[in-house]
Amino acid sequence: MCAQVLVGHGGADKLVFHDDWPTPRPKSDEVLIKVGACGLNPTDINTRTAWYSKKVKEGLTTDGGRGGFGAADAQDASWRGLSINFPRIQGADVVGRVVAVGSSVPPSRLNERVLVDPWIKTHPEDPTQCEYLGSECDGGACEYTAVPSTHALAIDSDLTDSELATFPCTLHTAETLALRLDVQPGETVVISGASGGVGSAAVQLCHVRGARVIAIASKSKHDLVRSLGAAAVVDRNQPQLAAAILKAASNQPIDAAIDVVGGTLFPHLLEVLRRGGRYAASGAIAGPICEMDLRSLYLKDLRLLGATVTPVGTMRRLVKLIEERRVRPVLAKTFPLRQLREAQEMLMEKKHVGNIVVTMEEEE
Amino acid sequence: MCAQVLVGHGGADKLVFHDDWPTPRPKSDEVLIKVGACGLNPTDINTRTAWYSKKVKEGLTTDGGRGGFGAADAQDASWRGLSINFPRIQGADVVGRVVAVGSSVPPSRLNERVLVDPWIKTHPEDPTQCEYLGSECDGGACEYTAVPSTHALAIDSDLTDSELATFPCTLHTAETLALRLDVQPGETVVISGASGGVGSAAVQLCHVRGARVIAIASKSKHDLVRSLGAAAVVDRNQPQLAAAILKAASNQPIDAAIDVVGGTLFPHLLEVLRRGGRYAASGAIAGPICEMDLRSLYLKDLRLLGATVTPVGTMRRLVKLIEERRVRPVLAKTFPLRQLREAQEMLMEKKHVGNIVVTMEEEE
Repeated sequence: MCAQVLVGHGGADKLVFHDDWPTPRPKSDEVLIKVGACGLNPTDINTRTAWYSKKVKEGLTTDGGRGGFGAADAQDASWRGLSINFPRIQGADVVGRVVAVGSSVPPSRLNERVLVDPWIKTHPEDPTQCEYLGSECDGGACEYTAVPSTHALAIDSDLTDSELATFPCTLHTAETLALRLDVQPGETVVISGASGGVGSAAVQLCHVRGARVIAIASKSKHDLVRSLGAAAVVDRNQPQLAAAILKAASNQPIDAAIDVVGGTLFPHLLEVLRRGGRYAASGAIAGPICEMDLRSLYLKDLRLLGATVTPVGTMRRLVKLIEERRVRPVLAKTFPLRQLREAQEMLMEKKHVGNIVVTMEEEE
Repeated sequence: MCAQVLVGHGGADKLVFHDDWPTPRPKSDEVLIKVGACGLNPTDINTRTAWYSKKVKEGLTTDGGRGGFGAADAQDASWRGLSINFPRIQGADVVGRVVAVGSSVPPSRLNERVLVDPWIKTHPEDPTQCEYLGSECDGGACEYTAVPSTHALAIDSDLTDSELATFPCTLHTAETLALRLDVQPGETVVISGASGGVGSAAVQLCHVRGARVIAIASKSKHDLVRSLGAAAVVDRNQPQLAAAILKAASNQPIDAAIDVVGGTLFPHLLEVLRRGGRYAASGAIAGPICEMDLRSLYLKDLRLLGATVTPVGTMRRLVKLIEERRVRPVLAKTFPLRQLREAQEMLMEKKHVGNIVVTMEEEE
């Protein structure tokens, strides 16, 4: 089959296209999916460049993403702090059709249209027990992928494969953020990186929950973010960001913050939170190392929450939301599988809104 | 009456001793307490020096504590981020006897021996509604103090006034930390600053909860900390602190961290926590500005929790613990009220273990 194979940590040249890669065979509890489209996520680049390693201190830049961060030998280069096994096919956001089933899977699943839950294995305490599609096992940047039948969720939708492929990782992550924060109707939530994949999904999910969303995004993307349900949008490029956020919230208290940006944005988010406010992060695209004033944390009784591993069953609820059209896809652009490097380059440039997707059409 | 009166933010000279200060009169719902002893806490020095102001970036040093941090005009110099009204009598840890009661308080309370709950007013969301004894209202560094009758808790104990005066703020804060973390039997908890007031109380309370305590303290204080219930004590002055903590825990996962130190210690605590681990802070005596690696927070699904305002009713439970002798006082030294400056100086030097207390004996 055709596949984009990651052969090691480093620059874009570590992604190698093959048209003769062995097609996987489903194990007894698995289904084989003919991939229609596969969404890209920052985690693809984080993994390829070994950005997750503590050896790396900077944010994800285009240069770092192109050439790697010089941490290719890191033994802690996966999201879970362990090493990655190569070769590896990346891609967490798989949409397609079931074309073969393992011996213990009912043949009635054949030809089902499915969206894959990328949390193949989860464990609340033991990271060595967690597997994420495209990191610890092969993902969807290829023509066929095999996943546990339980994780191939039937979906009934008139959205295209490319549109559906915008959802799994971003919507999943955004929902995990909202769950950790326990966002309530009527609360005010500030969301950074609101035009990106997770950010735009978080805007939608918090809006669906009845919260008032104050979004942070660069100016050219404000209309899009507002159309997703943000009550106000703040330009991220301004010197007095905290004051601008509070002004956008009509000086009402900020109950919660969702952050995928980190870096120099982080202190502003802590500053605007009310006493007892909550903050949750699922990324740090502007840089992982932040300045933290412990007085803000302890004197305001804040709660800062990491959001990575998702509660089991979350994806099934999200499929329902998608089917009911309560969230909509934000598809930035599609690329053929063969152009995965170009697609990753566009992702790193951060000029798009929403999600970038590769499709298998040319291979059909 | 005799009183140590704080006349403004700044150095130790802002504490002025008076022997003719007006004795307060209890309001209808208050009791008047003849103070037997009053414990000192870092918050006294933080408030005097305006360390809580965001203008201040460094930790509490002896020099800063003696001379102030040059932020005496700060309008955010109280723990709750507002200004302090002067003159103010400090002192959160009051032990004494009821000598007068307000019109709506039963006279049967007269002559009761009491320990004061220093959270005079609490409000989970609105800091302007919170009042802490010795910060927003006058405390116990004087002969007589008036507090709401509900906050003067009868205590039946053969401990001395000075011993009892070690408890309120430190035990209260330590219990709030343990509550926020929801410390469970069998869990492993690492505690920084374990020889100080809050730290030593946290060691005891976590031990009472059945947790295994790994304490961090300077070497000369290890025996004391071990006697309070620590399973292992780690020397804080070593280059590989995280590795030493993990070794002391026999490489078992660290479930939770209690931190009153902050500064350069902070990253080590995040590093040792297991996936899903919890961290709680109630102080930052080594410095409030810390380096935070957001990847630790989000990829390990950590929870970082501030611990300042205590749930109502906590002090009443703690009085029971004291009466049952399930926690013991760690009294470093007593000073007469007149020597409050010297007592604060000793507190700032951080060479003691436990709590420093001023007594009213010479004024009797």
